[in-house]
Amino acid sequence: IINTANPPVENIATPAEALELSRIANDEMAELVARYPERFIGAAACLPLHDIDAALTELDRAIGQLGFRGVQIYTDIQGQPLDDPRFAPIFDRAAALDVPVLLHPVRGPNRPDYPPEDASHFDSWRVIGWLYDTVAAMTRIVFSGVFDRHPNIKIVTHHLGGFAPYASERIREGYDKWLKAAHARNEPVLLAKHPYDYFHQFYADTITIGSVPALRCGLDFFGTDRVMFATDMPFDTQGGLKYIDVALKAMQEIDLPAADKAAIFEHNARRVFRLP
Amino acid sequence: IINTANPPVENIATPAEALELSRIANDEMAELVARYPERFIGAAACLPLHDIDAALTELDRAIGQLGFRGVQIYTDIQGQPLDDPRFAPIFDRAAALDVPVLLHPVRGPNRPDYPPEDASHFDSWRVIGWLYDTVAAMTRIVFSGVFDRHPNIKIVTHHLGGFAPYASERIREGYDKWLKAAHARNEPVLLAKHPYDYFHQFYADTITIGSVPALRCGLDFFGTDRVMFATDMPFDTQGGLKYIDVALKAMQEIDLPAADKAAIFEHNARRVFRLP
Repeated sequence: IINTANPPVENIATPAEALELSRIANDEMAELVARYPERFIGAAACLPLHDIDAALTELDRAIGQLGFRGVQIYTDIQGQPLDDPRFAPIFDRAAALDVPVLLHPVRGPNRPDYPPEDASHFDSWRVIGWLYDTVAAMTRIVFSGVFDRHPNIKIVTHHLGGFAPYASERIREGYDKWLKAAHARNEPVLLAKHPYDYFHQFYADTITIGSVPALRCGLDFFGTDRVMFATDMPFDTQGGLKYIDVALKAMQEIDLPAADKAAIFEHNARRVFRLP
Repeated sequence: IINTANPPVENIATPAEALELSRIANDEMAELVARYPERFIGAAACLPLHDIDAALTELDRAIGQLGFRGVQIYTDIQGQPLDDPRFAPIFDRAAALDVPVLLHPVRGPNRPDYPPEDASHFDSWRVIGWLYDTVAAMTRIVFSGVFDRHPNIKIVTHHLGGFAPYASERIREGYDKWLKAAHARNEPVLLAKHPYDYFHQFYADTITIGSVPALRCGLDFFGTDRVMFATDMPFDTQGGLKYIDVALKAMQEIDLPAADKAAIFEHNARRVFRLP
């Protein structure tokens, strides 16, 4: 699966430019998949999310005409969280088309870690900020009610769920308190289930940059039927070779039944992306 | 160990008020420790960090006169990160006194998760934001050079290191890239070691709200000689009983040699807090 993993963060395109750029990117990915079938089994669409109507049209084109297998969106759209009602049609359409939504973190170096500063220091925006982006976006998706509207929607989190698996019981307990407080104030809770339960409805990729303990923790959280092998290549310091190597090594080292490894390496992806 | 875990977030005291409040809190904790020796073995000082001279004087008083066993500070001081040179004397004094620095996350509900918003939604500030605060503060402490100045300083992170253990290899790889970029720009790197190495010099408590997979991941990261049992009571929905119960249950369920469990339950704390 090819995607466009380096989001633009500084220079914001106009809606018309975004649509044109999305079409160019999608056409080029389609061409690569067609030209190298032994290397690429599919691609995920990128969308001009400034303009939801244009985004829906491009999503339909990418899936229907280009044969794409999913769509990638970011953890916020120019800073707007994903529970903004504007974005609901994207999730609705992905659910209707039965294609997975791949969620990529997006904050840039201009996002400060401390209120008095005007930028992130020491690459925290990427090293740890992207993991926060993922868990914050999962929270907003949960509270948007999308899993009540579409119980079978497939939303795939990057980096093995940000750090949601490590925070698992903290999330459960946090929303126990949140529900208790909402009930005490007689506020309606619009979700059908405990918020924590929805966090387990996400899918995830295996990317822990080779950490076996993190991989173990993430698999315990999502379950071996919702995690798919991935490498994050080529974004390492060796043109992609290192990430492939450490991702494979972690899968070798982890103690798991062969059937679970086969699910993570192949069968889950075949099911989620509806591959032949 | 008693500490004052609910930080003030909305109403900021003046420096003089902060000093007075710190003295009142420390005197009262000292009184509780003296009155209930079968329940409390020590206390950690709180400090008026608006005024570093006053904070140092109060730290000396708490350790020297009240017999406190450590000091608690927050992951930022009114939004200022801990690598601000103003705060270096606090770490220097704690190292000189050989008392551990307990690090508590601090952001409040007024800290937005998304730039266009003016507050945090769905309790994210506490549920996940506090974990981010911890890892961001660890990063700033690492880059402040405090571990080069004081290789044996004991800095104890809350909630089993925020999510640093889950991000372990991402932190290593992130600072590989950061070092490579700094060298390419001929920028001096002021740290003696690879930034990642310092992340292992922190200590941590066991608080995962009962998650055994997270506890396992955290112990793999910090090592069983740097993790200390803790409960986070009474901040649950049952006046503290639940947190004690789940914390003990996780320690029962985790597969660890008895000697390691004894270290986590008792011996590490005796060494770090220099308890009799």
